[in-house]
Amino acid sequence: METKRVSQELLKNIKGYENRLAYVAPFDNQPSDRMVESDSENLKEHVRRDKIIGSLREAIEKCNIQDGMTISFHHHFRDGDKLLMMVVDILAEMGIKNLRIAASSLTSAHDGLVDHIENGVVDRIETSGLRGKLAKSVSEGLLGDNPAVIRSHGGRARAISSGDVKIDVAFLAASSADCMGNANGVVGKSICGSMGYAKVDAEHAEKVVVVTDTIVPYPNFPQSIPQTQVDYVAVVDEVGDSKGIMSGATRFTNNPKELLMAKRVLEVMKASGLFVDGFSMQTGTGGASLAVTRFIKEELIKRDIKISYALGGTTGPMVSLLEEGLVDTLFDTQCFDLTAAESVGRNEKHVEVSADFYASIGNKSAAVNKLDFVILSALEIDTEFNVNVISGSDGVIRAASGGHSDTSAMAKMSILVAPLTRGRLSTIIDKVTTIVTPGSTVDVVVTDYGVIVNPRRQDLMAKFKDDGIKMITMKEARELATRLVGTPKEIEFTDEVVAVVEYRDGSIIDTIRKIKK
Amino acid sequence: METKRVSQELLKNIKGYENRLAYVAPFDNQPSDRMVESDSENLKEHVRRDKIIGSLREAIEKCNIQDGMTISFHHHFRDGDKLLMMVVDILAEMGIKNLRIAASSLTSAHDGLVDHIENGVVDRIETSGLRGKLAKSVSEGLLGDNPAVIRSHGGRARAISSGDVKIDVAFLAASSADCMGNANGVVGKSICGSMGYAKVDAEHAEKVVVVTDTIVPYPNFPQSIPQTQVDYVAVVDEVGDSKGIMSGATRFTNNPKELLMAKRVLEVMKASGLFVDGFSMQTGTGGASLAVTRFIKEELIKRDIKISYALGGTTGPMVSLLEEGLVDTLFDTQCFDLTAAESVGRNEKHVEVSADFYASIGNKSAAVNKLDFVILSALEIDTEFNVNVISGSDGVIRAASGGHSDTSAMAKMSILVAPLTRGRLSTIIDKVTTIVTPGSTVDVVVTDYGVIVNPRRQDLMAKFKDDGIKMITMKEARELATRLVGTPKEIEFTDEVVAVVEYRDGSIIDTIRKIKK
Repeated sequence: METKRVSQELLKNIKGYENRLAYVAPFDNQPSDRMVESDSENLKEHVRRDKIIGSLREAIEKCNIQDGMTISFHHHFRDGDKLLMMVVDILAEMGIKNLRIAASSLTSAHDGLVDHIENGVVDRIETSGLRGKLAKSVSEGLLGDNPAVIRSHGGRARAISSGDVKIDVAFLAASSADCMGNANGVVGKSICGSMGYAKVDAEHAEKVVVVTDTIVPYPNFPQSIPQTQVDYVAVVDEVGDSKGIMSGATRFTNNPKELLMAKRVLEVMKASGLFVDGFSMQTGTGGASLAVTRFIKEELIKRDIKISYALGGTTGPMVSLLEEGLVDTLFDTQCFDLTAAESVGRNEKHVEVSADFYASIGNKSAAVNKLDFVILSALEIDTEFNVNVISGSDGVIRAASGGHSDTSAMAKMSILVAPLTRGRLSTIIDKVTTIVTPGSTVDVVVTDYGVIVNPRRQDLMAKFKDDGIKMITMKEARELATRLVGTPKEIEFTDEVVAVVEYRDGSIIDTIRKIKK
Repeated sequence: METKRVSQELLKNIKGYENRLAYVAPFDNQPSDRMVESDSENLKEHVRRDKIIGSLREAIEKCNIQDGMTISFHHHFRDGDKLLMMVVDILAEMGIKNLRIAASSLTSAHDGLVDHIENGVVDRIETSGLRGKLAKSVSEGLLGDNPAVIRSHGGRARAISSGDVKIDVAFLAASSADCMGNANGVVGKSICGSMGYAKVDAEHAEKVVVVTDTIVPYPNFPQSIPQTQVDYVAVVDEVGDSKGIMSGATRFTNNPKELLMAKRVLEVMKASGLFVDGFSMQTGTGGASLAVTRFIKEELIKRDIKISYALGGTTGPMVSLLEEGLVDTLFDTQCFDLTAAESVGRNEKHVEVSADFYASIGNKSAAVNKLDFVILSALEIDTEFNVNVISGSDGVIRAASGGHSDTSAMAKMSILVAPLTRGRLSTIIDKVTTIVTPGSTVDVVVTDYGVIVNPRRQDLMAKFKDDGIKMITMKEARELATRLVGTPKEIEFTDEVVAVVEYRDGSIIDTIRKIKK
């Protein structure tokens, strides 16, 4: 029996409380799915203390997914992801149609989506990247009049937190979880390290299902995904293949062209005046980038200075800098190898951060806002310094937007590293096939034939000149490339838009069209 | 010059993108206060990389506070808080009126608010507790027809996250911050430990000002309040007095009555069947509670078991259990002494959690949902087991709601510890002056005269009987108390409501009325 002191009548006389509810019973206003049905007089038996569901299928059924809904996934397992296809296969069996897939990215593990798009189970895709068979099919018009949406990592966080993308159900693969849903990617048999992209989905999705192959005693530690955001926990045999996270690019390069460019990158960093105690940086993966990390390390030791924070996608060599005390903090949204994945669970100052913290313009300042240097790669760069990292020179989607435009916009000095030519193709061209990163945010392009500085950065040109750095103009670079490999035949496109490229602020910076056969 | 590939015209032909903006320039859609004005061609000079404002007053002015707005504060410095009065004094100087103060709690440090209410600078108060002169004045009708709102810690998190309480500007005292606003309570000269209440304000307030006396190099660690939520950082001479966080109740009691009750608490815990490896608990401060912690420790060692997690308000003795490996994790919203405040910055498994994670019903499950035991105190308990922890037997507000109703509702076994009488007053009475925690959520009352079990818990009664625990009925306890101290004269109240007590779900469970003189 409840003692009731306050009536609705009484509340009508209290300013500001006219429409508030009077107390009835302790659990009257709890959502029913957060309680347990019971006839017991003992109210404590009504509290739900376990979210583990019998099977993934049962968890999906509980989410009451309808035709046309949006389901989301993270890509921390990269090529080793297993969950997305498991979930979509089950939804196909259940007869669900017209789903929108909002993934942080899609990889070769998701070729199977092609069939589900053809069958009408999936009709829209939002992602940072597309690869393999799926990318090719989308480029050929697989999605009909629903163009794929390509976003940067920061742009995706902005879109989700602003409500531009409403996620109905997020399915989050985790290497471990406890019975209440506290989950991470660093404990268990299938680790992926940071779950930075998934954190955004967990925070904003209507329903959140954590899927794992390792249940641990409560409370799991760390709480990358907190129980406060999780509806159900489903257990599967294997949630992902840890080996899939490796890009294979973490070995030190012996390629003389890459070594040359890496040395030039260090030179321009030194000449910029920003290479001082406490500078910050982000590097990518790939031979030249990792070589830069090694050269930077030598220079840090020589100067007896250290890096305040490094950002990114993290690799083993960056973890070494942390463990050797040459970098104070790693902010990590995604681990690119197992060394990094293990470190984020072990090193206190290897901090797992969400894609929102990393790079969104939707918050009051992201980590990219304090970057001094970012070192980025490119598929194509045009004479206006615009950068393409999404489509090949054949016009077919083949890669990912990632954090390219986010970091390039905010870093005090964004450095692109690219050889002037690759095989018979020029990297520097008149018009990039697709703009992902606007040229106005690119400061320096380091090639194997010299350094190109954006004319907006007269300050850098002056410094580089003082330091004797070999500079060439964009025009010279373009001409040189033409002499080396000629001018490629322009690709002919139809008017049909197969993908839109969103800039980090939500505006549309480019479209990708279907190629004319 | 920006390359523009996409026109508004073009977007009209793309399904779903009819109303989206075409890209114009990299920073066109960034809020102006997150950029720096500059004529430079070098776009990197437009990025705001520092949020430190010249003075607290200047930060307040930048927030553009208007009459009638809601400003919020946390009470982690308890009696040592300095910030609230600093801010309200400045706002008074600026001529602002009719402010609503949404504080996680108010202490004796805030007596000065009485003047500001009398002057019309402040006209509404929302808090967990009221003490001292302010409490007395509010009880006497200081707030006129705007009753104070009393919420539990979980209830406040629910109210803020649901939008019931919209915070215009949160002023968050932090012992350290970096130039981007990453802040915590564990680094610097004025530590307060966990900033669990402040985390909720930072997440939801329109504007967030971090105030500190210690600026550290970027990036500060840990990021209790992340830069993504902070608008401005203001520096003051001393943000709070660390000594004020101590309740003075962390020494071990020698009071035989308290020791007796503490032993009985352990007995009922053991008899409940829940005292097994991996149980969870929350205890409060105060002599009996801390004695319970010591007795529990001995029993854990004897049985060779450990606690999975302890929750709360944390004190030194609980930190010892963590450091001795007798508890796996401490989830901490607030530190009650310097030992705890230092530990939360040092011990990885002493985890700072928000009031939302701690106890809100607004999320998908709070930490309280997994509690086995909570040990709570009470000012008054009535024959329906309802509990008053806010007003004195004289009808005057004098304490705080805290996490009392949150934990009592969710713990498998909520244990109240209270002597049958205090001086000439009975703790067990017919009707509590104010209901904070409904009796239906209270399981066991441990007194110095025996253990009272809620009749809803026949299961516990049977177990206690088997264990030979001395039980008395509520009726017997009431009669015994009457024999000891008589029946107090009933307080006479007017109809004027001076405060409403919100239950954790937002319903109104009781009101506090003005006393008839």
